[in-house]
Amino acid sequence: MIHGGDVITYKDKYNVDIIDFSSNINPLGPPPGLREEMERAYSEISAYPDIHYRELKENIAAYLKCDNHEVITGNGAIEIINNACVLFNRIVVFTPCFTEYIRRPAVLGREVIKLSLDDDFKINIDKLEADLKPKDLLILGNPNNPTGLRISEQKLRRIHDAIKHKNAFLLLDEAFFEFCPADYDSVEIFKDSVNICIIRAATKFFALPGIRLGYGFATHDFAEKYGRIESPWSVNSYANAAGRVIFRGNDYIKNTKEYIKREKEYISNKLSEVEWIKAYRSDANFILIKLLKYDEDIVFDGFIKNGIMIRKASSFESLDKSYIRIAVKDRESNNKLIRLFKEFE
Amino acid sequence: MIHGGDVITYKDKYNVDIIDFSSNINPLGPPPGLREEMERAYSEISAYPDIHYRELKENIAAYLKCDNHEVITGNGAIEIINNACVLFNRIVVFTPCFTEYIRRPAVLGREVIKLSLDDDFKINIDKLEADLKPKDLLILGNPNNPTGLRISEQKLRRIHDAIKHKNAFLLLDEAFFEFCPADYDSVEIFKDSVNICIIRAATKFFALPGIRLGYGFATHDFAEKYGRIESPWSVNSYANAAGRVIFRGNDYIKNTKEYIKREKEYISNKLSEVEWIKAYRSDANFILIKLLKYDEDIVFDGFIKNGIMIRKASSFESLDKSYIRIAVKDRESNNKLIRLFKEFE
Repeated sequence: MIHGGDVITYKDKYNVDIIDFSSNINPLGPPPGLREEMERAYSEISAYPDIHYRELKENIAAYLKCDNHEVITGNGAIEIINNACVLFNRIVVFTPCFTEYIRRPAVLGREVIKLSLDDDFKINIDKLEADLKPKDLLILGNPNNPTGLRISEQKLRRIHDAIKHKNAFLLLDEAFFEFCPADYDSVEIFKDSVNICIIRAATKFFALPGIRLGYGFATHDFAEKYGRIESPWSVNSYANAAGRVIFRGNDYIKNTKEYIKREKEYISNKLSEVEWIKAYRSDANFILIKLLKYDEDIVFDGFIKNGIMIRKASSFESLDKSYIRIAVKDRESNNKLIRLFKEFE
Repeated sequence: MIHGGDVITYKDKYNVDIIDFSSNINPLGPPPGLREEMERAYSEISAYPDIHYRELKENIAAYLKCDNHEVITGNGAIEIINNACVLFNRIVVFTPCFTEYIRRPAVLGREVIKLSLDDDFKINIDKLEADLKPKDLLILGNPNNPTGLRISEQKLRRIHDAIKHKNAFLLLDEAFFEFCPADYDSVEIFKDSVNICIIRAATKFFALPGIRLGYGFATHDFAEKYGRIESPWSVNSYANAAGRVIFRGNDYIKNTKEYIKREKEYISNKLSEVEWIKAYRSDANFILIKLLKYDEDIVFDGFIKNGIMIRKASSFESLDKSYIRIAVKDRESNNKLIRLFKEFE
């Protein structure tokens, strides 16, 4: 299993309803007003999406507080990762990381340099500086998936200094940005800088994995290069229409942040009582867990029969079968998960 | 202008409502029942699309009369073209052709061999046999865009023989298939053959450019290779849901074919009365026109001020500014277009 979210395979196999803890989606569902906007959007599907995404980019720019010309879009964040890899010959990643940071460049025939995160899943800047070459693309998850750790502001600035020093390029994947502590906003920090692109996405926080809307901030010159190689109309009409609604739901955004913070604390506390696992601290809406007694297959099989799907983590480079990942969901689901962990002993 | 359909740019510039003759979409609009299915699909957008597209592939397979495992999908036909180009090092095309046959492989750093169609826009098989090498990917539009010409069954079989003989691969882009005369069905012909993939799409015939649903038939081994390199979840939930409805509308399919046939005859007859142009015969729902007096810019500017957008054709490799392309639309729009042609003299 390279990705989570494949409920259908197991629903059929075990003939049970499955709560999906393997994909990290806002449990509150999509923002208010979206259903009505999606119904109106039907009138737009018989025309091509605007090839320049003018309205969509305006909506995103207002949300990111940047210029329209600094906005890039994609068919989900993955297409942005893919297109960035098209523009570079050598890609540097720190493992474990989201598998597509490795898979997309490999598919495109690019060289992939895999550095390991330190034992505490932190980035070693000395290692980075030693291995980074001019014109490399460094891809970092912030927070990183599957570890859940956000890079501190100070460290991020140091990493970007190293990038500039080497004339490399930083692709910061912040698909989980809104779930994080609001200690800093990378777009604000790097707004007038160089050699950086910051991905955000509607998928996780706005609970819209089906709509496929990835977007990001990029320096103007990168956005231009991106425009020259992207496929036309890759963002569909519904994603375009969603942009009119989702970024305006301030209450929804605030409520989600509080909800996830509360549930993450709750679930983390309960998991700390389970002796056969170690749950890592997370800045995101998911938690990496070290299995101290069983391997991922035993836990997956044991849980799925009871209608809970967790994410095996051995498909993440550098992790073995002693790790799993879970999402933070609604209280009722979280309680079911915790009960399973406690009874599994 | 590399692509048609960019109505927004000109609507703003000239402050008129524009009839879009530059993109070739079924004027009858989407199939019946689709609106209701799209409204129901809202309940699916907070889950990832099935990473294996099982239900969608079943619906497509039933329509194409092939096996589920012979179906491939993409975020519009363009993503299928892109992914096919990932799998080959050298791409052969006959110009003029759809610009993305050249642009996608170029973006991917592939070598592109551009052969010219003969003066009557036909494929010269001797030329093909002379230039084709083992492991080449030959991309052909059938019918071809912008010429509108469909390859005869006999010629297509000869081309495929040449492909097999050289151990090359044929990507047949049949995005306009349903608009064509029903003289043969390439999927039926090549169902048990090798080295071929046939693209179809919901975009044109089912009037769904906003939904981004490309699909195709491929030999099982190609479909497997394709699955190993495609991006996950690139087909969105709405496209997936559309698959439940669009292929079942037999009356809609029949009516559209008759409608386009009738309107194409009507518009072709009227255009033949216009002395300053030559309209080519077309098997598709669009018509290539040779301008005998003005260039494309003069015609485009003259028409757009009157609320009609035609497709300049000089961005198609091998065509100069003396060509334009128009779509076949509803009677009222077609009459407006014809009137402009007649008055333009």
